[in-house]
Amino acid sequence: MRAAAYEGGGRVAVRDVEERPPASGEVQLRVAYVGICGTDLHILDGEMDARVSIPAILGHEMSGTVVAVGPDVTDWAKGDEVVVVPLDWCGACPACVRGHSHICYRLNFIGIDSPGAMQTLWNVAQRTLVRVPTGVSLVKAALAEPTAVAVHDVRRSGLRAGDKALVVGGGPIGLLIASVAAATGGDVLVSEPNTQRRELIERVGVRTVDPADDLAAVVDDWTEGAGVDVSFEVSGSSGGVEAAVASLAARGRLTLVAIHSRPTPVDLFRFFWRELTLVGARVYERADFEEALRLLGAGAIATDELVTDVVALEQAPVAFERLRAGQAMKVLVECGGPA
Amino acid sequence: MRAAAYEGGGRVAVRDVEERPPASGEVQLRVAYVGICGTDLHILDGEMDARVSIPAILGHEMSGTVVAVGPDVTDWAKGDEVVVVPLDWCGACPACVRGHSHICYRLNFIGIDSPGAMQTLWNVAQRTLVRVPTGVSLVKAALAEPTAVAVHDVRRSGLRAGDKALVVGGGPIGLLIASVAAATGGDVLVSEPNTQRRELIERVGVRTVDPADDLAAVVDDWTEGAGVDVSFEVSGSSGGVEAAVASLAARGRLTLVAIHSRPTPVDLFRFFWRELTLVGARVYERADFEEALRLLGAGAIATDELVTDVVALEQAPVAFERLRAGQAMKVLVECGGPA
Repeated sequence: MRAAAYEGGGRVAVRDVEERPPASGEVQLRVAYVGICGTDLHILDGEMDARVSIPAILGHEMSGTVVAVGPDVTDWAKGDEVVVVPLDWCGACPACVRGHSHICYRLNFIGIDSPGAMQTLWNVAQRTLVRVPTGVSLVKAALAEPTAVAVHDVRRSGLRAGDKALVVGGGPIGLLIASVAAATGGDVLVSEPNTQRRELIERVGVRTVDPADDLAAVVDDWTEGAGVDVSFEVSGSSGGVEAAVASLAARGRLTLVAIHSRPTPVDLFRFFWRELTLVGARVYERADFEEALRLLGAGAIATDELVTDVVALEQAPVAFERLRAGQAMKVLVECGGPA
Repeated sequence: MRAAAYEGGGRVAVRDVEERPPASGEVQLRVAYVGICGTDLHILDGEMDARVSIPAILGHEMSGTVVAVGPDVTDWAKGDEVVVVPLDWCGACPACVRGHSHICYRLNFIGIDSPGAMQTLWNVAQRTLVRVPTGVSLVKAALAEPTAVAVHDVRRSGLRAGDKALVVGGGPIGLLIASVAAATGGDVLVSEPNTQRRELIERVGVRTVDPADDLAAVVDDWTEGAGVDVSFEVSGSSGGVEAAVASLAARGRLTLVAIHSRPTPVDLFRFFWRELTLVGARVYERADFEEALRLLGAGAIATDELVTDVVALEQAPVAFERLRAGQAMKVLVECGGPA
């Protein structure tokens, strides 16, 4: 069988790998589609070489079909359509003991810390599986993982119907957050500097603003001087943090989604003065996947606009290049052979 | 009658001021005790000259007795012992409309934005008054305001019985937060560099640590590697923010109490990675005053250790100097003449 692996030095190659039968408690999936994530690009750029084991089979956003089950697997059978929650936790650390296993102190993120989905067949632990509901295609289901991120972010934000929400950053996760927030009854504005991305977001019915224009004045006008109820920092930029803080109303909540690898200046006076809240959000819990699949089934996510490219596994290196060049929103790699 | 006023240029003077009868809806108080706050020192240092009107009668922590009531005052009578919630809000701004009048966008903080309590007699709007319960002396009641700050901070922190709490900064507010957190069932550690303050805090039964020692190792040992459930940033220093963030367990909550007048570097990666929450806390609500008075009555606050000095109104300038020299914890100014 074949797999796309990061080989170091900015290279992805498609290579033969050995097939093995599923072990006890494992399920073997024929992988249908794998989405490429911003994190995969960071791996390709060598930024996570200390964490990955080269050659590293990438991919943690996927959909697939069960083709075989190992011993001691009772709940899954050949033909089941599934997605994988790519988290493997220890069950014993302080986070796990408190019921937050998704942020386990020793978390193994499958597809980064261990081999991922970008291969013809993939063996995974049965506890990682979530069933794809009837009526959700495998293309749509491949968006369950990033949609679950957005569901988790919106849940952490405490957004309620009628709230005004500013999303700072209009990449795939920003657009998904906007969609989930809108589906929750929020009134959403996305701030995004890239014109093509703004146009795409406007096409799915979400209002956008170019932060180079006067974002503060736009928010002030929109909220009649109050500020927004919730904001999401999805840009990873210092200016994004500043805008997400400055836009909030009294008791507003900022959900921090993007990764800021260095300490970032924050206007803590504003947090004091308006009694703001900042909430970190990382990955998702199982319930977020279930809600993501429900939203995908209900047509709440603009999957047609989001998925700009589908390429064959053999073309995976091209897919990474296209994404890096900023020419795509979400690229799916079609992995499976015939059923 | 007499009043202590900030006259600019670092000076406080005690001067004669004209007495006036209470207006409609006002109550006239004979002021008993007024506490001096860190904010009063900032005013004295000229840092708030843009906000105060010179001469500015200081004081927003107080206790007193009703001596007269103006027209249209029905709920208060001569002899009632009271404290004042020194907040005057507009009732119409977005914060007020959402029920957060204590952080009104146009808040008048009485004692900063308008004349304060450090005078023999003080006329205040009846809606600012809270009754002092039987058994709470006027000395103790003068601590209701800073205790209400601490009650508000602990409430914002979400601290629950059994939680481990780190208080960064062991001045009067830090000590009060530690006391309220302990009264709520928290297991408390205070980080404070000043040896005398640490000794005072240890005397009231709260554990302390010198941040110059290895705070991280102390927290690690105390929490068995988990981190604390809640932390309070009361130091106003960048290092304090760093320690308060680094000490938190997964899903831990940092309550920001101190004023950071400039953008401060914050380890946002840690917020993401451990799904931390940062909560700004400012002043208090009426319920916080009521709870503060209840705790003062129940003996939950170490008032004897906290109040290091009581001086007469005529000696108010000396009180400010003593506090500035770091020789005192809480100084009360005794204002009233005989009943």
